[in-house]
Amino acid sequence: MKLVDMKVAEFVSVLASDAPAPGGGSAAALAGSIGSALTIMVMNLTIGKKKYETYDSQSKEILQEMTKLNEQLVAIIDKDTEAFDGVSAIFSMPKETDEEKEKRRMAMQAALKAATLVPFEMMELMTKAAKVTQNAVGKSNINAASDLGVAALNLNSGLKGAWLNVLINLSGVKDQEFVEHYKQEGKKVLEEGCRVTDEIYAEILKIV
Amino acid sequence: MKLVDMKVAEFVSVLASDAPAPGGGSAAALAGSIGSALTIMVMNLTIGKKKYETYDSQSKEILQEMTKLNEQLVAIIDKDTEAFDGVSAIFSMPKETDEEKEKRRMAMQAALKAATLVPFEMMELMTKAAKVTQNAVGKSNINAASDLGVAALNLNSGLKGAWLNVLINLSGVKDQEFVEHYKQEGKKVLEEGCRVTDEIYAEILKIV
Repeated sequence: MKLVDMKVAEFVSVLASDAPAPGGGSAAALAGSIGSALTIMVMNLTIGKKKYETYDSQSKEILQEMTKLNEQLVAIIDKDTEAFDGVSAIFSMPKETDEEKEKRRMAMQAALKAATLVPFEMMELMTKAAKVTQNAVGKSNINAASDLGVAALNLNSGLKGAWLNVLINLSGVKDQEFVEHYKQEGKKVLEEGCRVTDEIYAEILKIV
Repeated sequence: MKLVDMKVAEFVSVLASDAPAPGGGSAAALAGSIGSALTIMVMNLTIGKKKYETYDSQSKEILQEMTKLNEQLVAIIDKDTEAFDGVSAIFSMPKETDEEKEKRRMAMQAALKAATLVPFEMMELMTKAAKVTQNAVGKSNINAASDLGVAALNLNSGLKGAWLNVLINLSGVKDQEFVEHYKQEGKKVLEEGCRVTDEIYAEILKIV
């Protein structure tokens, strides 16, 4: 059963259970999904309102971009758990002969790399979503200002959470070039996204 | 239909819709639910493991306390939307006569106070959950370190999100004593919870 097809209360229970997946990776993707959904809601509460008609075409653009990002973020909730399951599956591979050991080792390296790329993709999606959200600050329904703030907070938490998942998966990767590349790129995406979400939260605190 | 009985994907869609509720308040409570669930998961992956047997009784205590907090945080997802609906309902009250106007005004003030108390309660729950989570740092399954970090990030985001909801509801409350009380108390709870969650994230970054 797909995670996104579970009831909210059921998802929380499965998360809390001793099954290692779903874990923090899917939770980070959920935070991103919630964050992008809230920005969409604020656009839906802004578009067509007389008071904000100056921003109408911009709001529609934000709505469109964010809808795409939201779809990708919802899809990645399950993608992360699938990647994690890919790593877990390798523990049951045989390791008797040298050949088996080598096959197992290579499969593990490939699976860990794949499991790194998923939260890295999340980070990129959430930093994009944060930038799009920032365009709406001060130009959207003031009654929903707190919702836009909660959008930024969820994107911030999702971004940092995805980063922790990039790091924990990289810790098992032997290919140092791969490790260095994703550490450097990840740091850049993290810093940019956190800067934007922190700015949004600070702005919203002035409005509410 | 209760929000927690919706499928995850459905909850995200309803959040994104132009219905003002559910909004940031329920999203903040969901973040707290996810955060507490992840701490429970890490305890479930720690208790009974030889490597962490020194912390077994403490881990069981954390599990027990967090299970209670998690139940309350899940329940408050719907409670926040109900309180918001309580405010919305007042807009349809008659406002022809002076008596009707006065009745409407008083009902609005009562509803706004009730809608302030719900996210304030969330803040207290999440700060408690953060403190309980901190007790597990460095004393729980190292393979799930990133999950404990994501727990803290969700509690941080939920806490700040609930604070924005306290503030936006207080902005409509006329009773200045009430406003000052909850601003002061809210700030204290916010600062304490954020300090703890920031410390956890910083510690986890050193481990992963």
